[in-house]
Amino acid sequence: MKRWLIPLVMLMMHSEPTSPCVFADEGMWLFNNPPRKLLKEKYEFDATEKWLEHVQKSSVRFNSGGSGSFVSADGLVMTNHHVGLGALQKLSKKGKDFVRDGFYAKSLGEEFQSVDEELVVLMDITDVTDQVKAAVKPDMPADKAFEARRAVIAQIEAESEKKTGLHSNVVTLYQGGMFHLYRYKRYTDVRLVFAPEQQIAFYGGDADNFAYPRYDLDVCFFRVYEEGKPAKIEHHLTWSQAGLKDGELVFVSGHPGKTDRLNTVAELEYLRDIGYPFLMQRLNRLEVMLSIYSGRGEEYERKAKDLLFGVANSRKARDGGLAGLQDPAMMAQKKANEKSMRAAIAINSELKDVAQAFDVIEKVQKVRANVIKRYTLIEGGAGFNTGLFGIARALVRAADEYAKPDDQRLSEFNESNKKSLELKLFSRRPIYEDFELAKLQDSMMWLCEILGQENPIVQKALAGKSPRARATELISGTKLMDVEARKKLYQGGKSAVTESKDTMILLSRAIDKESRELRKIIESQLEEPKQQAYDKIAKAKFVLEGTNTYPDATFSLRLSFGTVKGYEEDGKKIPYETTFAGLYETAKEHNNKYPFNLPERWFERKDKLNLKTPFNFVCTADIIGGNSGSPVVNRKGEVVGLIFDGNIQSLVWDFAFTDEQARAVSVCTGAITEALRAVYDAGPLADEIIGGNRK
Amino acid sequence: MKRWLIPLVMLMMHSEPTSPCVFADEGMWLFNNPPRKLLKEKYEFDATEKWLEHVQKSSVRFNSGGSGSFVSADGLVMTNHHVGLGALQKLSKKGKDFVRDGFYAKSLGEEFQSVDEELVVLMDITDVTDQVKAAVKPDMPADKAFEARRAVIAQIEAESEKKTGLHSNVVTLYQGGMFHLYRYKRYTDVRLVFAPEQQIAFYGGDADNFAYPRYDLDVCFFRVYEEGKPAKIEHHLTWSQAGLKDGELVFVSGHPGKTDRLNTVAELEYLRDIGYPFLMQRLNRLEVMLSIYSGRGEEYERKAKDLLFGVANSRKARDGGLAGLQDPAMMAQKKANEKSMRAAIAINSELKDVAQAFDVIEKVQKVRANVIKRYTLIEGGAGFNTGLFGIARALVRAADEYAKPDDQRLSEFNESNKKSLELKLFSRRPIYEDFELAKLQDSMMWLCEILGQENPIVQKALAGKSPRARATELISGTKLMDVEARKKLYQGGKSAVTESKDTMILLSRAIDKESRELRKIIESQLEEPKQQAYDKIAKAKFVLEGTNTYPDATFSLRLSFGTVKGYEEDGKKIPYETTFAGLYETAKEHNNKYPFNLPERWFERKDKLNLKTPFNFVCTADIIGGNSGSPVVNRKGEVVGLIFDGNIQSLVWDFAFTDEQARAVSVCTGAITEALRAVYDAGPLADEIIGGNRK
Repeated sequence: MKRWLIPLVMLMMHSEPTSPCVFADEGMWLFNNPPRKLLKEKYEFDATEKWLEHVQKSSVRFNSGGSGSFVSADGLVMTNHHVGLGALQKLSKKGKDFVRDGFYAKSLGEEFQSVDEELVVLMDITDVTDQVKAAVKPDMPADKAFEARRAVIAQIEAESEKKTGLHSNVVTLYQGGMFHLYRYKRYTDVRLVFAPEQQIAFYGGDADNFAYPRYDLDVCFFRVYEEGKPAKIEHHLTWSQAGLKDGELVFVSGHPGKTDRLNTVAELEYLRDIGYPFLMQRLNRLEVMLSIYSGRGEEYERKAKDLLFGVANSRKARDGGLAGLQDPAMMAQKKANEKSMRAAIAINSELKDVAQAFDVIEKVQKVRANVIKRYTLIEGGAGFNTGLFGIARALVRAADEYAKPDDQRLSEFNESNKKSLELKLFSRRPIYEDFELAKLQDSMMWLCEILGQENPIVQKALAGKSPRARATELISGTKLMDVEARKKLYQGGKSAVTESKDTMILLSRAIDKESRELRKIIESQLEEPKQQAYDKIAKAKFVLEGTNTYPDATFSLRLSFGTVKGYEEDGKKIPYETTFAGLYETAKEHNNKYPFNLPERWFERKDKLNLKTPFNFVCTADIIGGNSGSPVVNRKGEVVGLIFDGNIQSLVWDFAFTDEQARAVSVCTGAITEALRAVYDAGPLADEIIGGNRK
Repeated sequence: MKRWLIPLVMLMMHSEPTSPCVFADEGMWLFNNPPRKLLKEKYEFDATEKWLEHVQKSSVRFNSGGSGSFVSADGLVMTNHHVGLGALQKLSKKGKDFVRDGFYAKSLGEEFQSVDEELVVLMDITDVTDQVKAAVKPDMPADKAFEARRAVIAQIEAESEKKTGLHSNVVTLYQGGMFHLYRYKRYTDVRLVFAPEQQIAFYGGDADNFAYPRYDLDVCFFRVYEEGKPAKIEHHLTWSQAGLKDGELVFVSGHPGKTDRLNTVAELEYLRDIGYPFLMQRLNRLEVMLSIYSGRGEEYERKAKDLLFGVANSRKARDGGLAGLQDPAMMAQKKANEKSMRAAIAINSELKDVAQAFDVIEKVQKVRANVIKRYTLIEGGAGFNTGLFGIARALVRAADEYAKPDDQRLSEFNESNKKSLELKLFSRRPIYEDFELAKLQDSMMWLCEILGQENPIVQKALAGKSPRARATELISGTKLMDVEARKKLYQGGKSAVTESKDTMILLSRAIDKESRELRKIIESQLEEPKQQAYDKIAKAKFVLEGTNTYPDATFSLRLSFGTVKGYEEDGKKIPYETTFAGLYETAKEHNNKYPFNLPERWFERKDKLNLKTPFNFVCTADIIGGNSGSPVVNRKGEVVGLIFDGNIQSLVWDFAFTDEQARAVSVCTGAITEALRAVYDAGPLADEIIGGNRK
């Protein structure tokens, strides 16, 4: 399951609802516009306000990327092991590897506070479309239009935050067709309760990633605290005791990151021929670099684990997406859809000004193709691949941006984002100098390879040295590993930053002008014209097809639905669920060799386990990266599963939904409690989950 | 140590001798122009004709890429394990992994015949420069000039072969400044005698590749046969009993693959900004793909081992080379040298027409930048990464080319190359359908990514399908795994090929016109103008600096020299040799964990080993990829070592020689015989080596 890797996808965030007739179980629906009619007609299910509110407020977003749910009144949160991986990694240190060995806190006192995890729960949604659109006048040039929209959004968020105290965020839906204000309750005291060994959480490793049948215990538990005590939670999901039935209706409530289902053909072709190939090049290179680093020894492996997992995971997911884009049948379907829509637009006098929107989107892809590499390497930071550079840039820009009125700042420096920014900036996560050096050296070499060594920005960054020597100089000359040093620069503002001789600060300052210019090109020559064009297309779609549809994914809360259902592959029936027995058989078939080996404990406790317990299952619900950790709930709103992956056939869901073979893959909740009791001696945790609160 | 990976470097074959004053121990010297004076003055060593002839004729080239030497009168050949790796891989099958487990033939009857190994020994050298140059008239257009040179070379080779029965090859030296005819004795009945486990041959794996201190038993032994019996060898090296002394003069006789030391600055900049980055992209992608394939299980790992080793090795070597190109200090030195040379040319009336040669080389780099990706993917075959495509293309082209007079053919189809071509074409090496499919699918996706899916050649290759689906169709529709099917098409000539419905043959035919056109662009718009320009520069160098110099490496036999010598790194003294004791200490430090684990046998036999035995050592002799397996000989012409690597600092030797820290890394011959006796129960083999013949 790919996580929501924000830096990698920042440039591919434009999309829209798709084909005229929505597929049977398709859709990542808004909680304030659920497919009530469809559910009623097809499944005789009433999506009541009460049911929706309960599921919504039981759902949690991990801002580091992923989803989760409350499963007890005492703040217990369930998510995937691979969503918690970053937190586990940050808590680990030499000789104490929670990722490899797992973790269980037998008492509250043993629960480990994560260093910078931030969880949010969606409390309510308000439509602010009119207010946002009113701020952008039709005759504004693109850069002014972009600034005006950014300003009004900052205003709305700041006002809401002031009024309600809730974290407020305006979500752009239908690519600019609608704007909704989402208000969230935030939790930042997040403690680790339980994690199994990565070897069982990610059983089968890269070989089995996106595969099915599967045998992964991809779960971990956190607990949110308020004022030093477990938070009291009103809405949490009840643990189902009933298990699953073939064909049963289920729902997924989570935060799908990004889909591109209603991109125009021109934009899909850009992604196929330019965007994805460049991304694949980057991911392949990172994977090799991280694998080599890990190969130096156990301690190196530990330090690189989280990042390597993320990169390999993205590489495999993107590879699947690209295979979809390279499939002429899918592209032919997309072309046919677009053609018929354009024909319908052409004969509708109400939609006169929509026709050229498609041409605008095609035209701006050329701007994008032209600037994407420079943008990614410089403003995207891919050419300076160390967290220390990100910290330096945040400090340099904070000094500039916080001096401006809120509505004129770069959006990440808006007041509404300040707490999140400070949480990250002052995080005490471990930073390993040698690892930062390895990443920086490799990425600065790549910077030279892609932009050319004589490129003026590259020359500025290198300061007359080779990329390797310069990276060494940068790492050895920065104090930003030290949180106190960061705080001093942050609090010292512009003058402190200007006077700083810290190498990383100096680098960031040296290239900031060019970097901001690249951002401006993307914003005013690509994003703004695209947003305006997609807004028109969205309007046309509402006119032609009605509003009973869903927007492309935006890492905001959505509701999907589907049925528990196996499928056929190469003439073979793949049953909808696996069992613990299948896990042991698989390990045996592979002589218990990595990545199909089992942690020792699973052999020791085999006799205690009910081997018939259903372990993983598939359903047809529509998901995408970001849904990792989403609860699967039944008609009663009880949790029956935990999304952790999609099968290989689901990887085209980025661009189009099909349910012939494509499936979402989940852990059965029954397997989780069975393993907690029989393998991990974590009976009290299982009791809390099943009872709904701590005893 | 990188091997001579011909497809990867085909486009980077132009180079030339370097700085005005040759460094102390610099140079890959021609056997017919050795540095006699230098050796005499600096080391009081007489390079007599007798000494030279003995070393030359004891040296062996592995045409698959690498060097070796005769070490007994009964045809015994010593080389590196990693040079023999391809042969070991081809002899392995499911359940019998010679790469992992090693091999020892206790008797002649147990020696395993390799499927397509070809060894050659250089018998003599004739200067044919005048004859070749006379064929190319000054007023010929580039394409005609190229053809005329190709034709005269084919004639010379064919005549020589007819006259002497020896394999004859005209070697282009000094980038076209000289042409020498090399005559070789060929051996194609090559049998495996001994190989240790890869884990001790490549101890430390990728982490330690190009590192020092080292502990690798990177050796294997083959025996060449003639008429079913061990070949009787006149010249073979005597095993030194004396060991090594610090500062001792040593020689390396081997086949360095390719250097670029005298490239103009413009060409180095091309390599830095275009050539190497594109190559790195390819290698990273291949490494990820092969690692994933290997990760599926033991049998997959076995099938991909040889290729994965080669790719990872190249990636690391190229990365080091690129770091050199990205070093402004090295480039500044190159620029200064070129500037002073151009100044000397400008004031020398004899050299009037040389001035613009530099501009020509700069100009053709643009042609190269423009065509390199298409050329590599289509004519280079990187977009169709399966041996089956190579076979199909050879069959398709053989039908066309063999119908032409010898001197008008593509050079690989010249009569003088026919035996080698047939050896490869009809090789019974195992071909694994699933492995070929994995490689072809990935490379055809890459083809689309790089050239764009709408590119007309890509469209032809895809035939309306997605790259994955098309690859599946191509593999399932070809019979070329079957050697008999190949023979039938080969013998059937043009009509058989034209009528064939074999998918791979059809693909090759479909794109052959475009592919040949790309080759023609490279030959007539890049290689020919470059060759003529470098010829002029070479002449100028002879005038300005004399001919007591060496040409860039060309995978032909060369003699290097240097001293056994440690170095300093980060203030630490690195001694010139390691011992078996150090090996065991290293394994212990890493808890015997991969890649620092030892084969079980090495623990069992530890007591039997003399732990003080010197294991690996370094010297300053000038080597490069292709030198793998070269013997290191002392003043007496006895073999004291076996080249298997260079340290990380030596990776810039592609472009410039330095001996401050850069070193060649070898196995001590004493360690080989000690391990044969104490660890491998191979006393008789050790006796043969030391005695000089079988008992």
